[in-house]
Amino acid sequence: MKKLLSILACALWASMAWAQQALFGGNQIVSPEVNADGTVTFRLYAPKAVKVEVTGDFLPQVKVPTPMGEMEQPGVAPLKEEKGGVWTYTTTPLAPELYSYTFKVDGMTYLDPSNVYMCRDIATYTNIFIVEKEKGDTGDLYSVNDVPHGNVSKVWYDSPTLKMKRRMTVYTPAGYDKGGHYPVLYLLHGAGGDEDAWTTLGRAAQIMDNLIAEGKAKPMIVVMTNGNPNCEAAPGEWSKGMYKPSFMGHMESKPVASMEESFPDVVKYVEKNYRVLKGKKNRAICGLSMGGGHSFSISKLYPDMFDYVGLFSAAIFMNGGNDSKKSALEQMNADPEFNRQMAALFGAHPKLYWIAIGKTDFLYKSNADYRKYLDEKGYPYEYLETEGGHIWRNWRVYLTLFAQKIFQ
Amino acid sequence: MKKLLSILACALWASMAWAQQALFGGNQIVSPEVNADGTVTFRLYAPKAVKVEVTGDFLPQVKVPTPMGEMEQPGVAPLKEEKGGVWTYTTTPLAPELYSYTFKVDGMTYLDPSNVYMCRDIATYTNIFIVEKEKGDTGDLYSVNDVPHGNVSKVWYDSPTLKMKRRMTVYTPAGYDKGGHYPVLYLLHGAGGDEDAWTTLGRAAQIMDNLIAEGKAKPMIVVMTNGNPNCEAAPGEWSKGMYKPSFMGHMESKPVASMEESFPDVVKYVEKNYRVLKGKKNRAICGLSMGGGHSFSISKLYPDMFDYVGLFSAAIFMNGGNDSKKSALEQMNADPEFNRQMAALFGAHPKLYWIAIGKTDFLYKSNADYRKYLDEKGYPYEYLETEGGHIWRNWRVYLTLFAQKIFQ
Repeated sequence: MKKLLSILACALWASMAWAQQALFGGNQIVSPEVNADGTVTFRLYAPKAVKVEVTGDFLPQVKVPTPMGEMEQPGVAPLKEEKGGVWTYTTTPLAPELYSYTFKVDGMTYLDPSNVYMCRDIATYTNIFIVEKEKGDTGDLYSVNDVPHGNVSKVWYDSPTLKMKRRMTVYTPAGYDKGGHYPVLYLLHGAGGDEDAWTTLGRAAQIMDNLIAEGKAKPMIVVMTNGNPNCEAAPGEWSKGMYKPSFMGHMESKPVASMEESFPDVVKYVEKNYRVLKGKKNRAICGLSMGGGHSFSISKLYPDMFDYVGLFSAAIFMNGGNDSKKSALEQMNADPEFNRQMAALFGAHPKLYWIAIGKTDFLYKSNADYRKYLDEKGYPYEYLETEGGHIWRNWRVYLTLFAQKIFQ
Repeated sequence: MKKLLSILACALWASMAWAQQALFGGNQIVSPEVNADGTVTFRLYAPKAVKVEVTGDFLPQVKVPTPMGEMEQPGVAPLKEEKGGVWTYTTTPLAPELYSYTFKVDGMTYLDPSNVYMCRDIATYTNIFIVEKEKGDTGDLYSVNDVPHGNVSKVWYDSPTLKMKRRMTVYTPAGYDKGGHYPVLYLLHGAGGDEDAWTTLGRAAQIMDNLIAEGKAKPMIVVMTNGNPNCEAAPGEWSKGMYKPSFMGHMESKPVASMEESFPDVVKYVEKNYRVLKGKKNRAICGLSMGGGHSFSISKLYPDMFDYVGLFSAAIFMNGGNDSKKSALEQMNADPEFNRQMAALFGAHPKLYWIAIGKTDFLYKSNADYRKYLDEKGYPYEYLETEGGHIWRNWRVYLTLFAQKIFQ
């Protein structure tokens, strides 16, 4: 068997230029290497390069001016050329976390050829790595550990409202195949994302596996929909071909209804095809950014559907509330339909209405206005304010916390 | 809604250096562009580059010397610098197919930043694109078309034989959620691959969706296992962390049993957890390279299990058959256990024993020896010989043909 493998190996390597390069070129180096002291070393074989840099979210952020004011960007650090054309850079010790990075070689963005782990965010890939220091820390929580794993499925369902078949990602917890009935968390992505987002950069399957294994979250089904009502599925997974993903889903397609209007199609399919515990107390909805906006809208459109609502850095907006002369609070108070829906939502006494946002998030103000509205009306909610802005690092933490608060 | 999206877009782009670069840099160019005449244009923004090339399997192959004799490699073509630092190359008209490529910028391999579609083969990524000319051609067959889609799930099952929980990919055909019972095809990958291989470079879900929609293949469940008995799952999907994939699965892990010995664990799980039509006539097994070897071994180890066996460029080897002084045929004839198993296999009269290989495949000779053995014994089989070598392009075609021959 070993002999066969080595024959296969030689032949395949020889027959593929790119693989051969990986074998005989400089790519046998290790990168990134997470060192015992929590520093991380990056290495890139680039013998002809003049300048090699790494940019990533583990570097101190820098502020840059934009039309919307100052914004934070990942920092940049230089690699130094060492022997044999290999460039290296070692970070300071990093806190446990999942980090993203790319190289820049003479100004061109370059994925690390020694690291097969990467995630797509809209149309851009970055490499990822995880720093883990001890059992139970954030890095450990995002890692695949030696615990029972749930299954992750790409499932096509019918949406009569959107007049299309649509694709969603369904996580069923370990043990689902043994029987039983489970509550359901609907977990929604942000603008530019799709039904793949929460299981890639979001690490939702790892977070749920680990929380459930530790007894910190109840075993639950997690349903991750596609929030772009003009798309059937993630880019390349439906009949529009291998198009370039955009912030708007698919640039040329128009939806026939909204994500919010179509949401009961999802719940109907899930409750028919999975062994679920039914009723409001066994349903939760949460989402990030646009998906936080969807969670906000869907929960008030269907006040009897969810007992748990989570708004993560939510893009909260109102029907017709686009009058820039009035504050968001004034607009909310002036909208009778909005007030009627909110009264119905809180009249149904959800068990948890949870709002989380980072202090530097560009949606901080609109969330603060919304909290003020809730306070004035006396509608109960829980609130978490974290460091940082509109980033996946926060959303993974928010999912981790929210998942432990529901169905308990 | 549009206003919100544009605010979100500005903020996110501004907050991410890499995304911003994609927006404001040269990456808004289209690449690859499949032109109406079947040519394909590649474009890369590389203003400081001295030399830019593309290498891919659409270029005429070149022969290079290796320790195992001459081997074919994908060719290389130069891009020319045009205005604004954009380099371009246009191919001759290409036949319908799924193609792989990468750029080389001053000698460094570089993924196309304008193309989000890529596949991993062992530790190396290449970009992919599909050329499709008309309905029903090979490119069309590998595309996601406007037909009912099956679901693709990552499923954890118990393997008592290997003493681990293991991950497999399960395709259930469109309509499975409506009820009914289905036959099962077990579809095995090659060395260096894993349970993801057939649904990425193999396009198995698209091939099955399209064949079933056209009535050319029976609706069936397709089970794609992990053929590395020292691994629970694909790299990064089990508790060994984000290791670099190798040809041997995971370099440091040792299996407690063979893939062949553990295979009944798979069948048992599938037949317990899916609505399957049972019995030999409703089971098929096939695989490529090492997976062809597994199909060969598993079918003769369990002669009553499968009525359909497909060997695609199969790595055929024998227990103890490593005597280099004797021909493969001599070794086969001299091995009583091998002959006993083969007699039992063909004594059970499989409905189809199908062998396919390319004329320039490095395993051509061992397959020819094996066919000679079958001929001498009078064991019936079907044989297909194609152009080309040990490549995915052939294996996709073999799956397409084999899938139409089974359960009919």
